[in-house]
Amino acid sequence: MKSKVPLLGIITNYIYRRKGKQLRPLLVFLTAGMTGSINPSTYIAAGMIELLHTATLIHDDVVDEAYERRGSYSINALWRSKVAVLVGDFLLSKGLLLAIESEEYELLRNMSEAVREMSEGELIQIERSRRIDTDEPTYFDIIRKKTAALISSCTVNGAISAGAPAEDISRVKEIGLNLGMSFQIKDDLFDYQSKGILGKPIGNDVKEKKLTLPLIHALEQTNGTTRHHILKQVRRSRNNADALREVIDFVHASGGIEYAHRKMMEYKENAIDTLKSFPDNEYKKSLLQLADYIVERNH
Amino acid sequence: MKSKVPLLGIITNYIYRRKGKQLRPLLVFLTAGMTGSINPSTYIAAGMIELLHTATLIHDDVVDEAYERRGSYSINALWRSKVAVLVGDFLLSKGLLLAIESEEYELLRNMSEAVREMSEGELIQIERSRRIDTDEPTYFDIIRKKTAALISSCTVNGAISAGAPAEDISRVKEIGLNLGMSFQIKDDLFDYQSKGILGKPIGNDVKEKKLTLPLIHALEQTNGTTRHHILKQVRRSRNNADALREVIDFVHASGGIEYAHRKMMEYKENAIDTLKSFPDNEYKKSLLQLADYIVERNH
Repeated sequence: MKSKVPLLGIITNYIYRRKGKQLRPLLVFLTAGMTGSINPSTYIAAGMIELLHTATLIHDDVVDEAYERRGSYSINALWRSKVAVLVGDFLLSKGLLLAIESEEYELLRNMSEAVREMSEGELIQIERSRRIDTDEPTYFDIIRKKTAALISSCTVNGAISAGAPAEDISRVKEIGLNLGMSFQIKDDLFDYQSKGILGKPIGNDVKEKKLTLPLIHALEQTNGTTRHHILKQVRRSRNNADALREVIDFVHASGGIEYAHRKMMEYKENAIDTLKSFPDNEYKKSLLQLADYIVERNH
Repeated sequence: MKSKVPLLGIITNYIYRRKGKQLRPLLVFLTAGMTGSINPSTYIAAGMIELLHTATLIHDDVVDEAYERRGSYSINALWRSKVAVLVGDFLLSKGLLLAIESEEYELLRNMSEAVREMSEGELIQIERSRRIDTDEPTYFDIIRKKTAALISSCTVNGAISAGAPAEDISRVKEIGLNLGMSFQIKDDLFDYQSKGILGKPIGNDVKEKKLTLPLIHALEQTNGTTRHHILKQVRRSRNNADALREVIDFVHASGGIEYAHRKMMEYKENAIDTLKSFPDNEYKKSLLQLADYIVERNH
């Protein structure tokens, strides 16, 4: 992340000291270790994804006018949002150059396709939230694109970097997709049952009219009159705490939490089943633990 | 720019119908024609740069909260800024995929390096504007990075796509850099002498404490007391129309406009001199005309 521009040095240093879970590079390293051996290409793949992911988070915070990130101030809270966007662009181009300069074109292609799918997934979600009509198949399509595609490009790039055979690559792709799906369902559950000091405030998705699995399922369990009433409360929830409370209580009472939890566990179990088809080693063991962490984490 | 997401189709269609001067792809095609022949790689290079450039403009408008672009509404004026950022990301990844899928890695490397330089240049400018101490060498360094690097990657990629020899590539790089410098000085002159219906409002750079060549030169012509007073007026100009007027009048009275105009013409002449070293053909003739257009345009 080095640069001769002093301001960039200060900001990238700030970012570095507040790095997150680093789940994505971790997946790259562990998959490479499980399917072959970790080598310089693995470092390129892991670095590229973390630079890209960090760039995305910085841009997200600008657009959402979010002033907190990872329990600390966001870049746009401390510097002007113009600066935050430019730092994001800088990290993004650094990530690209990392792959281009080491001629890792296959890694780059996978990552760029995941970025395209990500932006498409987010746009479908926004389009649907305007009409408040997301159904279950659409929800799964959205989260596959916006979250699972990038996580699956981590496991795929890990295996590619390790020189794994095509058959292994298609299996780790499945693992990444399933882990990504359970990761996003877990994130969406937080909106209905936040806990701990790092927990996000509850109900943000509802206020943005973003229908996620717990609410979608709850709505599918009910009759036309109740459905109509709850959707009206969703629309009012941004400025009305009672309406928001009613929607959240409805989701809990109609089994939305249990259903989403069950689906999340199904995806996790799919990932674990495919993981089990690989020969035992320390990396596989860590990946199995990581799958549990994804569904059990508190933030 | 095609996508299966309906909202994306509507927005990319809107962008397509309001395309701008398309100066960058034009430079790619003309340079390819002058140094060899236009071929499928040239189309990739031209498409990639225009997708990238459009993505940058959309992101710029979000950050600047600009509601007009090319005499029409900006994307973030019509859709939510979250949507505008995502459409920018989509176009950016499409541009990358265009190069990756056709294995045009050399074109991609040039472009990514230009993007990195661009973000660095903009960040230096922001850093300097906070201290209001940009001098002439720093100014030229900033505009070389933030504007000329990308324009020079157009001429370089045009020549690379045409299979031009290394010696030609280094000459078209010089041409691109010099055209880019004169292009940016022209843009900076608009801030002091806007005209026509498409003209941007005057004095925006001053209000943002962005010192450009006309003001930098004017300040260098004066004594400490006047300099101190003018810098005070620059700081006040955002909320004080009289202070702004005084700064602009000072620039005009101290020969700042003439000096910047002279420098712009020097860069243009450098570009033309190098252009003349190429054998005559219709593409070279068009590039000579384009050089004149860059310094004579009214928007």
